[in-house]
Formats: sequence, structure tokens, C-alpha cells
Amino acid sequence: MDCCNTKNEKIKVRTEEEKKNIITRINKITGQMNGIKEMILNDRYCDDVLIQLSAIDKSIKSLANFILDKHMHSCLIENINNGNYEIVDEIVELFKRFQ
Amino acid sequence: MDCCNTKNEKIKVRTEEEKKNIITRINKITGQMNGIKEMILNDRYCDDVLIQLSAIDKSIKSLANFILDKHMHSCLIENINNGNYEIVDEIVELFKRFQ
Amino acid sequence: MDCCNTKNEKIKVRTEEEKKNIITRINKITGQMNGIKEMILNDRYCDDVLIQLSAIDKSIKSLANFILDKHMHSCLIENINNGNYEIVDEIVELFKRFQ
Amino acid sequence: MDCCNTKNEKIKVRTEEEKKNIITRINKITGQMNGIKEMILNDRYCDDVLIQLSAIDKSIKSLANFILDKHMHSCLIENINNGNYEIVDEIVELFKRFQ
Repeated sequence: MDCCNTKNEKIKVRTEEEKKNIITRINKITGQMNGIKEMILNDRYCDDVLIQLSAIDKSIKSLANFILDKHMHSCLIENINNGNYEIVDEIVELFKRFQ
Repeated sequence: MDCCNTKNEKIKVRTEEEKKNIITRINKITGQMNGIKEMILNDRYCDDVLIQLSAIDKSIKSLANFILDKHMHSCLIENINNGNYEIVDEIVELFKRFQ
Repeated sequence: MDCCNTKNEKIKVRTEEEKKNIITRINKITGQMNGIKEMILNDRYCDDVLIQLSAIDKSIKSLANFILDKHMHSCLIENINNGNYEIVDEIVELFKRFQ
Repeated sequence: MDCCNTKNEKIKVRTEEEKKNIITRINKITGQMNGIKEMILNDRYCDDVLIQLSAIDKSIKSLANFILDKHMHSCLIENINNGNYEIVDEIVELFKRFQ
């Protein structure tokens, strides 16, 4: 069982490989953000800064899609198999948040 | 003159206040990313992670809008006053990148 | 059974109420588009036209969310209950298309 | 002068070619919307409907980008040359609306 709904909070047990993939992506995004900081400190041209920011925006969406994909292939299926259909509304809400 | 187009590269001279505002936002976003890392290491539920990621996405867009606003009020006006209209295409491209 | 996968194509049987809701939204969007056409023919100012276009963009996303919500509450659950998990990938793809 | 700010309203004088291009795009989008209506009346599968809707969304953004490009190359430059810098805020607002 990947998704547990304990008394206090829901959790999601991820494989080591999955965690490693996500942490690597987060570190990359943090590195990109530090790159932007350098650009600002060095008076770099706005257009170059904004192009970099749009690249970070894409990295974040790509990370979100990766997590969502794993979420739907585990928690969503697991919950539907258990007759817990509220998770469908949860995912529709996520859909709206990232539009 | 805020925007200089030197032989090798364009630069943008920002005020100390502007730089400080941007750096503060970047530090906040980096802090949010580290928060996501903690959530992953602690097996936090996907939906909570994804809601946080959508908040970061909004922070990045807000930072981009701040930089663009300053850019248009300085470099854009300056360039148009100097008859350099190519900057208009540059901004239309940015518009598409963030759509 | 709402979703049938016949030899030639998948179909989705919608209730009359659902169809009526969707058709009403489509007619409204088509009306908004005709409004834009009038604005162009009457030399209306670009900013006003673009604000109207952004409103249409929101109407389309809202229609997409309505259809997706119904889709997930019927076809998705039905397919998962039948062990057809490919539908999950289909929805992840939609997520990306509307980002 | 392309952009006039009369007592009651701003207007934008577009060339016949520009108008024709925009009207053609609007007619195409209206045709696509009617296609969606047919799909709903024929019980077509949700995923196919949603893929079509995402295509319409792209057509609308493309139309908005076309109008914005013309707007910036005429009204924006004209206004800045006349010292009317409020138009810059107007465009930053549009940027946010389409994000």
C-alpha cells in the first residue's frame, strides 16, 4: 500500500528511485534560482533573466507532472479500488491550479 | 541611462531597492523549494506537495511580472525613445514564453 | 455504463442535463467570439479586445474543467474498476495540454 | 495615427489586411467550437473533446499574440513617443491576464 490515510495525516510512500529523481530535480531548480540571483547581482539584461525564469517555470511544471503521474498511478488507483472517490475531486482541483 | 548595449552584451542597471526586492523574492522561492525537499524526504502526501509546487509557480510568475514591469518602464521606453523598436519583438516573445 | 469502447471508437454517453450545460457554454463562447468580430469591425481599441479574448480563454478552460470533472467521475472510475489503467496516462497528457 | 483617444473612447484603426487576418482566425475558432458542439451531440469520447478544446485554447492565444504584436508595434510606440507611459501598465496587466 503506497498511500496511507492515518488518523492525523495522509502520507505517500515513494520508492528510493522516485525520491532520488524528485530530489535531483529540486536541486536543479534551486541551482537555476541561484543562477538568477547571480544574474541580478551582475546587472544582467532583463530579457536574459526572464528567459531563464521561464525555463525554471517549465522545470517546475515538469516536476509537478512527474509527481502527479506517480500519484495517479498509485494513490488514485488505490483509492478508487477502495471506493474512495473523493480523490477525483482532489485531482480536478490540481488540474485547475496548474492551468 | 538604465540599459546599456555594450559591444559584448546588454546590461541593466537596477537600483539597490529593486535588487533587494528581487533577491528577497528569489530567497523566498529557494526556501519554498527546500520545503518541498523536506516534504518528499518525509513521505508527505502528493496532493500537499503539488499544492505547494503550484504556490511556487505563482511566486515565480509574480517575480517575472515584477522584473518585466521594471524592464518595460525603463529599457522599453528608453529604446523606443532611441528609435530601437526591436525590443518590442523581444517583449512579444516573452509574452509567449509565459503563457 | 457511461463509456463504451466499441470496435471502432470510444464513446461517452452523457445525460441530457450534462449535454444541455455543455451546449449552453459552447453557445456562450461562440457569442463572445462574434462579439470580438464586431469589435474588430468597429475599430475597437486593442486592449479592450484582448481583455475580452482573455475572458473567452477563461470560459474555455472552465468548459474543459467541467467536461474533465464528469469524465473522471464516470469514465476514469469505470475504467479503473475494470482494470484498464491506461486511462491514467490519457489524463496526465490532458493535464499537460492545458497547463 | 493608428490609435486615437477621443473624448469617449480609444479606437484602433487597423489595415484591411490586418482586419481580414483577424476575422479569418475568429471564423476558424467559431468553426472549431461548432465542431465541439457536434462531438457532444454525437456522444464523442471526452478525451477527444478535450484535445479539441486544448487546440482551440491555442488558437485563441495565437490570435491574442497577433493582436498584441500589432498593438505594441503601433499604439505602444505611438503613445511612448507622445510621452503617454500609462500604456506600459496596460500591457503588463495583459501579460498577467494571459499567464
